[in-house]
Amino acid sequence: MGADDLAREHGHRTVTPAADRQESSTPNGTPPAPDLARLYRPRSIAVVGASANPDKLGHQILRNIIDSGYSGHIYPINPKAETILGLTCYPSIEQAPAVDLAVIVVPAEAVVPVAEACGRHGVAHLVVISAGFKEVGPDGARREAALVEVCRRYGMGLVGPNCLGVIDTHTPLNATFASAQPVRGSIAFISQSGALGSAILDWSHQQNIGFSRFISLGNKAGLTEVDLILDAASDPHTNVVCAYLEDVKDGARFLDVVGEATQRRPVLILKSGTSEAGGRAASSHTGALAGDDRAYQCAFNQTGVIRVQSLTELFSLATAFANQPLPAGPRVAIVTNAGGPGIIATDAVERMGLATARLAPETVKALREQLPPECAVYNPVDVVGDAPPERYRVALEAVARDPGVDAILVLLTPQVPTRPPEVARHVLAAREMAPGKPIMVSMIGGELVREATDFLVAHRIPCFTFPEEAVMALAGMYRYARRRQRGPSPSATRLADVRPDEARAVLERLRSEGRRVLLGPEAAQVAAAYGIRVAPAALARTPDEAVAAAESIGYPVALKIASPEIVHKSDVGGVRLRLASADAVREAFVEIQERVSSLMPQHRFYGIEVSRMMPSGQELIIGMVRDRQFGPVLAFGMGGIYVNLLKDVSFRLARVLSQADVEEMIQETKVYQLLRGYRGAEPADLAAIQEALARVARLALDLPEVAELDVNPLFAYRSGEGYVAVDVKMTLA
Amino acid sequence: MGADDLAREHGHRTVTPAADRQESSTPNGTPPAPDLARLYRPRSIAVVGASANPDKLGHQILRNIIDSGYSGHIYPINPKAETILGLTCYPSIEQAPAVDLAVIVVPAEAVVPVAEACGRHGVAHLVVISAGFKEVGPDGARREAALVEVCRRYGMGLVGPNCLGVIDTHTPLNATFASAQPVRGSIAFISQSGALGSAILDWSHQQNIGFSRFISLGNKAGLTEVDLILDAASDPHTNVVCAYLEDVKDGARFLDVVGEATQRRPVLILKSGTSEAGGRAASSHTGALAGDDRAYQCAFNQTGVIRVQSLTELFSLATAFANQPLPAGPRVAIVTNAGGPGIIATDAVERMGLATARLAPETVKALREQLPPECAVYNPVDVVGDAPPERYRVALEAVARDPGVDAILVLLTPQVPTRPPEVARHVLAAREMAPGKPIMVSMIGGELVREATDFLVAHRIPCFTFPEEAVMALAGMYRYARRRQRGPSPSATRLADVRPDEARAVLERLRSEGRRVLLGPEAAQVAAAYGIRVAPAALARTPDEAVAAAESIGYPVALKIASPEIVHKSDVGGVRLRLASADAVREAFVEIQERVSSLMPQHRFYGIEVSRMMPSGQELIIGMVRDRQFGPVLAFGMGGIYVNLLKDVSFRLARVLSQADVEEMIQETKVYQLLRGYRGAEPADLAAIQEALARVARLALDLPEVAELDVNPLFAYRSGEGYVAVDVKMTLA
Repeated sequence: MGADDLAREHGHRTVTPAADRQESSTPNGTPPAPDLARLYRPRSIAVVGASANPDKLGHQILRNIIDSGYSGHIYPINPKAETILGLTCYPSIEQAPAVDLAVIVVPAEAVVPVAEACGRHGVAHLVVISAGFKEVGPDGARREAALVEVCRRYGMGLVGPNCLGVIDTHTPLNATFASAQPVRGSIAFISQSGALGSAILDWSHQQNIGFSRFISLGNKAGLTEVDLILDAASDPHTNVVCAYLEDVKDGARFLDVVGEATQRRPVLILKSGTSEAGGRAASSHTGALAGDDRAYQCAFNQTGVIRVQSLTELFSLATAFANQPLPAGPRVAIVTNAGGPGIIATDAVERMGLATARLAPETVKALREQLPPECAVYNPVDVVGDAPPERYRVALEAVARDPGVDAILVLLTPQVPTRPPEVARHVLAAREMAPGKPIMVSMIGGELVREATDFLVAHRIPCFTFPEEAVMALAGMYRYARRRQRGPSPSATRLADVRPDEARAVLERLRSEGRRVLLGPEAAQVAAAYGIRVAPAALARTPDEAVAAAESIGYPVALKIASPEIVHKSDVGGVRLRLASADAVREAFVEIQERVSSLMPQHRFYGIEVSRMMPSGQELIIGMVRDRQFGPVLAFGMGGIYVNLLKDVSFRLARVLSQADVEEMIQETKVYQLLRGYRGAEPADLAAIQEALARVARLALDLPEVAELDVNPLFAYRSGEGYVAVDVKMTLA
Repeated sequence: MGADDLAREHGHRTVTPAADRQESSTPNGTPPAPDLARLYRPRSIAVVGASANPDKLGHQILRNIIDSGYSGHIYPINPKAETILGLTCYPSIEQAPAVDLAVIVVPAEAVVPVAEACGRHGVAHLVVISAGFKEVGPDGARREAALVEVCRRYGMGLVGPNCLGVIDTHTPLNATFASAQPVRGSIAFISQSGALGSAILDWSHQQNIGFSRFISLGNKAGLTEVDLILDAASDPHTNVVCAYLEDVKDGARFLDVVGEATQRRPVLILKSGTSEAGGRAASSHTGALAGDDRAYQCAFNQTGVIRVQSLTELFSLATAFANQPLPAGPRVAIVTNAGGPGIIATDAVERMGLATARLAPETVKALREQLPPECAVYNPVDVVGDAPPERYRVALEAVARDPGVDAILVLLTPQVPTRPPEVARHVLAAREMAPGKPIMVSMIGGELVREATDFLVAHRIPCFTFPEEAVMALAGMYRYARRRQRGPSPSATRLADVRPDEARAVLERLRSEGRRVLLGPEAAQVAAAYGIRVAPAALARTPDEAVAAAESIGYPVALKIASPEIVHKSDVGGVRLRLASADAVREAFVEIQERVSSLMPQHRFYGIEVSRMMPSGQELIIGMVRDRQFGPVLAFGMGGIYVNLLKDVSFRLARVLSQADVEEMIQETKVYQLLRGYRGAEPADLAAIQEALARVARLALDLPEVAELDVNPLFAYRSGEGYVAVDVKMTLA
């Protein structure tokens, strides 16, 4: 492809088809991803800081661009050289012809002026290789801010600074200083660590793993992981998007748009480091339960990102996704020539959420007729140790044709009659026969299987040394396929019947009084404004007020000292239950007031809470804490005093809470077994509990000043009878 | 080593040093492992069924023996040949000189007569390669039984039948038909799958993994995994024992002796397949909780076996154990030239139960002085991307000398100034400096790091591609080291004050009546005979008997219909609680009897149980089911009606229940948080609970006719106040 072709193709891309436009709109209205066509497929590139000295990065990058076979225009920018590597130099960017992409490798202090010049010259994207920015301290941070400002002013995209560069093997273009060149393929790899990225490029060569793109994020001052993931998910040459991340820069934008990317392509993320979630030192139950990493876990789950725990897992899965169709279901057929690996694979299939396919009677019959009697014709199909390749052919054809088989796993141990290369050819033939079924291969061995595995990998059949790895990759594909089939679930938090103004008025009053902790009736009032069913309650400052409240609420009532300071209210004699008459209420009021004031003479009297005694139900907790990155984290689980002991709690982020999330977060807990009717008991009102969760989420989204919230206990009643929030605690930021 | 050397060495080994003798005695009196010296280091070998045809196994084995460099006498046995592969043939074993080891590769039907002849000839061990035994059905099973009987009669050891053979790389001897020869090393590998074994040999070659021994178990008719594990753990050339198992043949013997093996050497087992534990279809709580694989899990844990989940894990750990000293503690120092892999490794260190070492002030100072300012001098020590090898030297020396560092993890990404081979030499130097500290290396890359990793592996430094694998291996070493340091814990079940005869009398009565389910008071009586504190109770058949019982037990009492058939006793009006007087007891008795007989007219009246109302305590469950392989499985956890819902239960095998096990099985549960005093509550009587567990275990060991047992609830009281078993259920086999 020449520069003109690139230009033409580029022009073509600017006519965005309607479908694409629709896809790039986002539900919550965050800006769509920037157009990165001129980053990955520039018509022309300037290397600012190009050098004739082979030891300099400015030389290595230029050489990589040339060596990669890039067919557009290349302009080395260097005021002191005439030509470098046979290309005409320009003394400055302004003196070069039109430039789409400028790769900047000048000393840090020169970067901002160079960027300014690039902006004036109409450059579309900058890749700033130079280090010496935020990572070196306050001076660098100031420099970085200035760079961002220049890019913003001129509407330039910015990769880096402090990065390795950008590769697109299909353009082709390698604008990095990595010493290893990637093989062309369909994995896009986005790395927050440049060193890891270049090491992976070297390793991938040996493994014959092919990349469509590679991009080093550097300091992520301009383009972030979200921009790059979103764009890669639309790249026709990319089948799977992989990222190594140490953090997510803009949690809200991540939540708003990554779900869309994962509907198009599988997105695998290895996230290292632990986030310091806001909840860490929180005082609420929910805060103590929501661990450091929980919000990231939720963000990945809820957007459909597949989170991997290791680099091994990342590339095993990536290889599978890159080369194989998604399985239509969980049913795996195993063909092996040895019992042991067959058992190992079967164990792994069941452990990892897949199923052993039950072969159709015709399949079993065909196998029985064509294989010797010592072979096992049920799944796993064992062609046994003395199998020549022909038996593999028979077995593979049979399972490939069986409509009850969604995926095929071929296991081989090299024995005397095995002839692995011939078996490999039969594997290929099976793929032709069943192009919709993923096929994974594990040939256990070294030299004896090398020719066969090389052949298979060259033909895009993933090969693993050990069966468990193949199963792990298949299981990941199945999870993704199921999730994508399900499609997006509607938001659970679009509720019409909420009264934010009423809630804000309560919070406003607190703020004006300089208080952070809401009294019980105040918290209940805020909750009620969001349609959460709370036990009728009122704050009384005198015995008469208490009696009046009780009369209006209805007996029996409970009295409880209202106080943000007193945590264990019954320990100080601050609680009286089951009061059934005006006299009892009056007497209890006086008693509580006296007990508290004698035990805690300094205590400010806020009043006494009068609340209706509610019939008890299954105790639940619904809670909320805020994560710095991703906003409100919702918690649901078994309530009562043992919440922190049993830790039977599930979590979701409120910002992208879908109806499916609400249902799943209930189903994930053990208390769900009780709610749906344990040992013949009547089921609880699940619809009402789901609604309560959605309402708490809506509250958290509308009222950012509410830092933490605990509804504990919430009594769940029988189906049709709803629930009641017995105790609501709320704290402001 | 010649045949004479072998003989001399062999003679030397028969003088067992006292320490060895002591080690081979077993606590429960099972026979010690058979002497396998003449299996692994025979002075002479006969190959019965040796063949001149290179396609025959009888040829391949003979050639492998010769090629392996075996220096003893080799006698091919073949009536039709004069010489094979240059060796003189003998027409039958009887005509050959004295033979230590006979490898038999004749057709199945000829094996037993050949074995008989070997026995007469004084052969010490048979390795039966031939297939056609138990694995082919009843005829084969009979043949196998006959073979075992011959071996027993002559006192011959038997490997197989239906196996790949035996290798000892230090003898050296390869008596298998595997096409790949293993590298000499210090890993003993015992495989229940011959095909997997030979595939692993091929693979290990490529990975440069060295074996001391390799043995294929075949049908395990004679020598079992236990014999081979035990012997390998005493082999001076073996540093780590690995096994792939599909089952354990004799669970009791496994439990009795493998714990001793794991004190000497790390034993890694990959166990595939799921056991069909006796508990599967059991009716008790405990039975429903103890899953299929639970007994194996307990057996491995309690004997100190390291169970691995995959072949990858097996060999990563084996390589580490084979080549590195055990870490003295969990503190890992990480040296890296890239931030990303450093973070990934730190995450893994914390996730896998290790700790990031806190470097000593002198270490930090030394690093600060010798490294450039951009380097990170706390752990992970980051020598940054432009590091020449010299910086690695500085960092490695510093952490090697730091007494607060127990293990070193070296990470490297290949960058321009890195020079991996030089870094590798500095790693070696660090090992010299700190020979007691394990060093693991992860060099991420392909071609660029190959020379360095080849060099390190050749010098016995384990190299992994990705940091997580190195950390995983280190974590396994640390767990093993900690367990071995702890040493054997005394048995918890040696109790003097138990009265088995009293318990057996109760069971005898049931058996004579043809009943399987004990009535409450009967179960309580059996439990009491083992010193388990049960609520005072008696069985009354008339109102007068009930009153008498109540008077003797003391009020208040509960009355409950005694019946093995009625499960939900309160549903049929069969329970009355808190009865405080003789009249109340009399009235309740009549009422219960009438209600039950009107609701269930067919019901046989066994009587009514009168029991003391006990003050409530923390509800616990102690249970027992029997595993077919490993005997009684003990369960402990949170009791009450939600046992099956919360599944807060831990398990141990009674046969090897140690004091440490009893303590740990309590600590593993969540209810332990309550027992040790949750949120300021008083702690429970842990010593008494431990004793109750030991007593239930003793009961289960003494009374094999008790198939299942549930104590639920057991009320645990405050420290010093003991516990009471409120409800005891027992079922006979």
